[in-house]
Amino acid sequence: LRRGFPEVIFCQGKTPEQALAAFRELAGHNGRVLATRVSPETASLIKTELPEAQYRPEARILFLSRTEIKPRWGRIAVLSAGTSDLPVAEEAALTAELLENEVSRIYDVGVAGIHRLFSHLEELERARVLIVVAGMEGALPGVVAGLTDRPVIAVPTSTGYGASFGGLSALLTMLNTCSPGVGVVNIDNGFGAAVLAHLITRSGDEKP
Amino acid sequence: LRRGFPEVIFCQGKTPEQALAAFRELAGHNGRVLATRVSPETASLIKTELPEAQYRPEARILFLSRTEIKPRWGRIAVLSAGTSDLPVAEEAALTAELLENEVSRIYDVGVAGIHRLFSHLEELERARVLIVVAGMEGALPGVVAGLTDRPVIAVPTSTGYGASFGGLSALLTMLNTCSPGVGVVNIDNGFGAAVLAHLITRSGDEKP
Amino acid sequence: LRRGFPEVIFCQGKTPEQALAAFRELAGHNGRVLATRVSPETASLIKTELPEAQYRPEARILFLSRTEIKPRWGRIAVLSAGTSDLPVAEEAALTAELLENEVSRIYDVGVAGIHRLFSHLEELERARVLIVVAGMEGALPGVVAGLTDRPVIAVPTSTGYGASFGGLSALLTMLNTCSPGVGVVNIDNGFGAAVLAHLITRSGDEKP
Amino acid sequence: LRRGFPEVIFCQGKTPEQALAAFRELAGHNGRVLATRVSPETASLIKTELPEAQYRPEARILFLSRTEIKPRWGRIAVLSAGTSDLPVAEEAALTAELLENEVSRIYDVGVAGIHRLFSHLEELERARVLIVVAGMEGALPGVVAGLTDRPVIAVPTSTGYGASFGGLSALLTMLNTCSPGVGVVNIDNGFGAAVLAHLITRSGDEKP
Amino acid sequence: LRRGFPEVIFCQGKTPEQALAAFRELAGHNGRVLATRVSPETASLIKTELPEAQYRPEARILFLSRTEIKPRWGRIAVLSAGTSDLPVAEEAALTAELLENEVSRIYDVGVAGIHRLFSHLEELERARVLIVVAGMEGALPGVVAGLTDRPVIAVPTSTGYGASFGGLSALLTMLNTCSPGVGVVNIDNGFGAAVLAHLITRSGDEKP
Amino acid sequence: LRRGFPEVIFCQGKTPEQALAAFRELAGHNGRVLATRVSPETASLIKTELPEAQYRPEARILFLSRTEIKPRWGRIAVLSAGTSDLPVAEEAALTAELLENEVSRIYDVGVAGIHRLFSHLEELERARVLIVVAGMEGALPGVVAGLTDRPVIAVPTSTGYGASFGGLSALLTMLNTCSPGVGVVNIDNGFGAAVLAHLITRSGDEKP
Amino acid sequence: LRRGFPEVIFCQGKTPEQALAAFRELAGHNGRVLATRVSPETASLIKTELPEAQYRPEARILFLSRTEIKPRWGRIAVLSAGTSDLPVAEEAALTAELLENEVSRIYDVGVAGIHRLFSHLEELERARVLIVVAGMEGALPGVVAGLTDRPVIAVPTSTGYGASFGGLSALLTMLNTCSPGVGVVNIDNGFGAAVLAHLITRSGDEKP
Amino acid sequence: LRRGFPEVIFCQGKTPEQALAAFRELAGHNGRVLATRVSPETASLIKTELPEAQYRPEARILFLSRTEIKPRWGRIAVLSAGTSDLPVAEEAALTAELLENEVSRIYDVGVAGIHRLFSHLEELERARVLIVVAGMEGALPGVVAGLTDRPVIAVPTSTGYGASFGGLSALLTMLNTCSPGVGVVNIDNGFGAAVLAHLITRSGDEKP
Ligand SMILES: Nc1ncnc2c1ncn2[C@@H]1O[C@H](COP(=O)(O)O)[C@@H](O)[C@H]1O
Ligand SMILES: Nc1ncnc2c1ncn2[C@@H]1O[C@H](COP(=O)(O)O)[C@@H](O)[C@H]1O
Ligand SMILES: Nc1ncnc2c1ncn2[C@@H]1O[C@H](COP(=O)(O)O)[C@@H](O)[C@H]1O
Ligand SMILES: Nc1ncnc2c1ncn2[C@@H]1O[C@H](COP(=O)(O)O)[C@@H](O)[C@H]1O
Ligand SMILES: [Mg+2]
Ligand SMILES: [Mg+2]
Ligand SMILES: [Mg+2]
Ligand SMILES: [Mg+2]
Ligand SMILES: [Mg+2]
Ligand SMILES: [Mg+2]
Ligand SMILES: [Mg+2]
Ligand SMILES: [Mg+2]
Repeated sequence: LRRGFPEVIFCQGKTPEQALAAFRELAGHNGRVLATRVSPETASLIKTELPEAQYRPEARILFLSRTEIKPRWGRIAVLSAGTSDLPVAEEAALTAELLENEVSRIYDVGVAGIHRLFSHLEELERARVLIVVAGMEGALPGVVAGLTDRPVIAVPTSTGYGASFGGLSALLTMLNTCSPGVGVVNIDNGFGAAVLAHLITRSGDEKP
Repeated sequence: LRRGFPEVIFCQGKTPEQALAAFRELAGHNGRVLATRVSPETASLIKTELPEAQYRPEARILFLSRTEIKPRWGRIAVLSAGTSDLPVAEEAALTAELLENEVSRIYDVGVAGIHRLFSHLEELERARVLIVVAGMEGALPGVVAGLTDRPVIAVPTSTGYGASFGGLSALLTMLNTCSPGVGVVNIDNGFGAAVLAHLITRSGDEKP
Repeated sequence: LRRGFPEVIFCQGKTPEQALAAFRELAGHNGRVLATRVSPETASLIKTELPEAQYRPEARILFLSRTEIKPRWGRIAVLSAGTSDLPVAEEAALTAELLENEVSRIYDVGVAGIHRLFSHLEELERARVLIVVAGMEGALPGVVAGLTDRPVIAVPTSTGYGASFGGLSALLTMLNTCSPGVGVVNIDNGFGAAVLAHLITRSGDEKP
Repeated sequence: LRRGFPEVIFCQGKTPEQALAAFRELAGHNGRVLATRVSPETASLIKTELPEAQYRPEARILFLSRTEIKPRWGRIAVLSAGTSDLPVAEEAALTAELLENEVSRIYDVGVAGIHRLFSHLEELERARVLIVVAGMEGALPGVVAGLTDRPVIAVPTSTGYGASFGGLSALLTMLNTCSPGVGVVNIDNGFGAAVLAHLITRSGDEKP
Repeated sequence: LRRGFPEVIFCQGKTPEQALAAFRELAGHNGRVLATRVSPETASLIKTELPEAQYRPEARILFLSRTEIKPRWGRIAVLSAGTSDLPVAEEAALTAELLENEVSRIYDVGVAGIHRLFSHLEELERARVLIVVAGMEGALPGVVAGLTDRPVIAVPTSTGYGASFGGLSALLTMLNTCSPGVGVVNIDNGFGAAVLAHLITRSGDEKP
Repeated sequence: LRRGFPEVIFCQGKTPEQALAAFRELAGHNGRVLATRVSPETASLIKTELPEAQYRPEARILFLSRTEIKPRWGRIAVLSAGTSDLPVAEEAALTAELLENEVSRIYDVGVAGIHRLFSHLEELERARVLIVVAGMEGALPGVVAGLTDRPVIAVPTSTGYGASFGGLSALLTMLNTCSPGVGVVNIDNGFGAAVLAHLITRSGDEKP
Repeated sequence: LRRGFPEVIFCQGKTPEQALAAFRELAGHNGRVLATRVSPETASLIKTELPEAQYRPEARILFLSRTEIKPRWGRIAVLSAGTSDLPVAEEAALTAELLENEVSRIYDVGVAGIHRLFSHLEELERARVLIVVAGMEGALPGVVAGLTDRPVIAVPTSTGYGASFGGLSALLTMLNTCSPGVGVVNIDNGFGAAVLAHLITRSGDEKP
Repeated sequence: LRRGFPEVIFCQGKTPEQALAAFRELAGHNGRVLATRVSPETASLIKTELPEAQYRPEARILFLSRTEIKPRWGRIAVLSAGTSDLPVAEEAALTAELLENEVSRIYDVGVAGIHRLFSHLEELERARVLIVVAGMEGALPGVVAGLTDRPVIAVPTSTGYGASFGGLSALLTMLNTCSPGVGVVNIDNGFGAAVLAHLITRSGDEKP
């Protein structure tokens, strides 16, 4: 499915040692290995043993590829609302790149200052699918879907406090958007959004 | 408090007879009476006995005033996102008028077609306070607050289905908006929004 | 956006007269009109005035098209778990057809008798995107996503009782699926799923 | 919008280094900078580099102003129910002062000893808008709104335990108050309450 | 336990015929029978067969007593906040009377007009226990408990709309009150409050 | 109200220094001071300055009394279901003693081994009011109320895991008990239960 | 699986005509047909066409069997707490009988009068598995599990009001019981409980 | 009940010292002692004093048995969906073994790769009861129940993030499964599932 990333390691809740064991195991049989939610400590430990692995802290991703990764599929644009949504947006953007898609990043275009979004409308049209990341009120995906005809994958984030209830507020907003054409993934699930976007670009190119 | 509307009758959950009794009682002692959430049946019954009462079905309001009602306070703009939000928006707008405020109505400017909102920006600036009514995703108040410096009163509505959970989704969106300057009232509470807006216009004019 | 369906009328919560007024208005300016959640009463009333409109009760859809509707875009497969999910599945399937996509229907393949699903695997591969409708436990989309590499749009339904909490159980299941590649829409939102699937097929064919 | 506080830095969830970077950036281009939810460690670090910044730990606010801040707008009264609500009340009060409003503080007047509130009634009337902060049962804003005709901004706090559910109990109380004239902000959002109050005082003075 | 009311019939959810059967059965073996949540139809049917039964529609109670009911235990005061709380308050008050307690009714003293409460403070002190009924924000029991040293039984009601969530808001308010000395019963459970109050008055008089 | 404990200090969420300041302040003006939720560190710090204060770690209570505390009011029995409910039960029992009531402790009598409860039935009858503490399923108060005619104060605790949701499960059980005569306080609120029980014993003895 | 009941028809939400169609279809190919949640109207309609079908209104079950149904498997005891739990208990008991198990009914033994339960302890021991049905507080399964070593299947019901939240309170109680040996099914799911009990008795007799 | 494990110690929330005290106490009177949720620190401390105790960290269980433990009852199969469900699955499997049942472990057969499950179907038929452990979407028990006629005990786990809400998503899925024959225990309650399975195997062998 994931073009050389046969099994992806989710490191949240694993000790560095457990993560290393899983990574080592996969690296023994595969040319590409992908791990998400990787803390700096876990990354250091794994890189000590597997120095060819690359760590991208802003995306919390560690990966290893023994063959070149180059864009083969359609363009995916990743939009984010605020600065605290960045780790989730980067998890989505980097995963999409590692799955060999073209990726545009359009960050910090939340609805509290909606004019920032308008200067990017053409860029949106150049993508085949949009991933839109937002926390707190979570209104950005609905606004974006109203402005384009591209399919929108909405990612609620757990940023916020009080009545954001750990991302529930943003999640409900996205599920209830009046703009049709929006599919929602789990709170903070940048990885899942990228895989879905990738299946969409690939499905269009490898038409059955 | 409410300029001649000494006690306001909330008719939801009352029989027409109970509503009539309350209305008759207040009309005996006051020059002005206001009732909200009035069904056509209740309105008919009351008008049979008190023909001077006026019914506005789109706002579900029945009122009676023995003196002229004319605008005395600052302008309040009432915005709504979709057509199903109209009864709540009208409850707010008419209540604000009966409290002797100037009122502008700017309806059907939801975020799924955000361009419709932009043609009204100047009108927003002419108001002293904005009431913004929206259901489902409830994103409009945050977008509006990002575009003006006027105080915004957000009214979530119970329109929608599924994960809108009777207005909860819109309510949470509004509480979590990234645009500061938004105060939220109960779901469907157009009346409460109008009273708050009225206290704001009056507080500015009758400076303590 | 929607190829001749400029504005779609959501009839739930509207009186037959309100629905007729909206339909008449759109039919005056457009060659195609689409209305969802249409009761038999509303359909009868509208057809009295606009006999060219066609009603599909199993999908609760009424539409009118003055030009031929014929498949132009990639294939969309619609799967459903149980018999009570049929109205939502049909809302999705018919909407997708009216948006001029090829549609395959694969119904009653819920996980309680999972062998029924396996005889359809090849058919799944022939589609460009899958819409999977399920209520109660809502497990079908995750199982399907594990069996194919097609993008999956999951539609939770409100069927069930007790701890299904009006579709909440199915919704949470779908958001938490371990199979990446699943985007979720609102409970019972067959229409939204079809629009998203349509944007995906079109986005692939009209590559930007 | 905020008179010299072009962007406000929300430090919760930021490392001291991230907060410093944001503060330094804004201080390079603006005469005034405001940061909220600032821990003592973050404050120390920033003050090492920017000694002109001032820290108010009771409000968890760090600010810098190269021009004098002096009251220009109408009076805002900030009331709080209990001692654990103080940090939120101070966040509101200091933010309002930094936005150049007159501020009165009326603290520890919760409904469990309601007589304490009555000695402040005149002071309430001298304000143009009231911010009322309360946790646990959250009853104070409704009681206050019943006693005056000033607009009330209600701030639920997350103090309490058990069935207070992190401020949900106080939030619901405030949304359901029988006294009209109350707008509610997010749990613990003293900053947002102050901005709303400020927009109200300014809107009254700079009448459109 | 209940002095001649050996088993109390809860009629909500029972057909008139089922209620009659239960009433007839108990009336065959007991001098006193009590039924709550009795609709006018159910009451008519039962009175046709058992004309000695007495119906109190404002309390939705039907009872029958073949011996005189007269006050034997300490005084219970029943307070209510708003007019829609009356059926629950009357269920409590009448149940308490039928259990042979002295009862004072103090109605319509909600916190939105708190001055009305103050004229009753002496009357509160004359009771041995207070039942305080309130819906929506549910703030009255906490205010009352702060004003007296009598034990308070708080009864949340399901009146209200939107974020009152069927009485949940009032229930949480009462559980979180800062005034110690408050015990809470289920939403709308005026009957249960009266039994608890009665056990308190009796426990004091029949000291073990 | 509380016989020499004019204000009770709730130490949860206070630093040892803040708690000491509050304790010192009250000890300067009163013969008796009571603090709840006191950690060993806070207790040590306060006892260094005020060695006459007494710490009871099993109840997390620190108190100081310059006059003798001796039982003056009726007997209160405190029951608990499991060993993890002990801190809450002891908070209730010791608070009741410090308020000068007779107290019986009947611990570890949960419904999973209900025979243990039966050997205490006579002891229950000797009390004037019962405090029943239980977590997880929270069934004990309802069972106890079915076995006696004493008023029952139910205290849900936050012990448990998973679907106990921090005490919510026990709280709902207690509110829904079929045995009338039960009043419920907040989760873990042993202190509040004791104050309510004390008001009941006192109200019976000092009949108004 | 179900010994001659190849597919069971769930009639809730089906029109009488839909139910008849499903019943007729199954009766054409099978010697036994079972339908649950059957209203009297639906039963009448089906019996008009298939007079051999038998209706049991107290269990809301309609069934048809062309061969004798006789007990073949171990004994299942069905216990219920209150009279409003009867339809669910009967759905369980009759389903278990139709699956050819011995069934004992032990009704109206709720924890508010726990002595009634004790006279049935021997009968409990004679069963191989117990189904325990309870609404509101839902405490009965935990108490029963504490008294026997038989496996317990707990069925929460939706009876109750207010904070019973449609059976949620009983459901949580049962999931959190301190007595191990309890498995829980969906709210009101007497049918599912009977199937599980039947699989247990059969699994024991037909040892693999 | 539990064949020599008279009381089981639940160590979560206990200090190592408290756990040791409980263990020592039981070991003084019993030939077998079982403790669950035992951290390595607690295990070390207890083994220092009672070296005959055995610790199984993967199950978080510490036990002591002075007589041989050998399989006496029917076979129980324990299935798990993902690797993070292992501690709960092992708690179930080891508890079942210590209760002297035969146990088969079938791990890592989640629905995202459902083919892995199919190679174990015969093994499922050889068991008398199945324990199925799954987190996140929690779909495995329903799929398994659809494939066999064995009774299924479903154990939701708290693994996952975002909208898994600490296991709530998996719990609701399991309660709503369309496959009858599934009983659910509390989130993460592997111990309770094993006891229930054990009561089932024993109940079948020791037929009453
Ligand atoms: N205490 C606060 N509570 C809520 N919002 C705040 C607070 N402080 C700052 N903000 C908002 O947060 C935004 C900055 O967030 P960030 O980009 O994460 O630093 C600003 O535009 C403010 O409107
Ligand atoms: N354990 C407790 N649980 C609930 N409320 C308490 C507790 N201890 C003290 N209180 C209340 O908390 C108030 C003091 O809160 P504070 O001003 O934050 O110290 C007192 O008036 C008590 O009524
Ligand atoms: N009372 C019931 N509660 C839960 N599930 C049921 C009930 N009766 C039938 N079922 C299940 O519902 C399925 C049939 O649903 P349907 O296709 O909608 O008739 C059957 O396979 C049964 O397993
Ligand atoms: N892992 C577990 N999950 C749920 N309940 C448990 C577990 N381990 C032990 N128990 C139960 O908890 C009770 C002991 O609790 P405690 O008295 O707090 O040690 C025992 O009677 C067991 O029935
Ligand atoms: Mg769009
Ligand atoms: Mg603004
Ligand atoms: Mg897939
Ligand atoms: Mg007011
Ligand atoms: Mg008091
Ligand atoms: Mg009793
Ligand atoms: Mg047992
Ligand atoms: Mg099965």
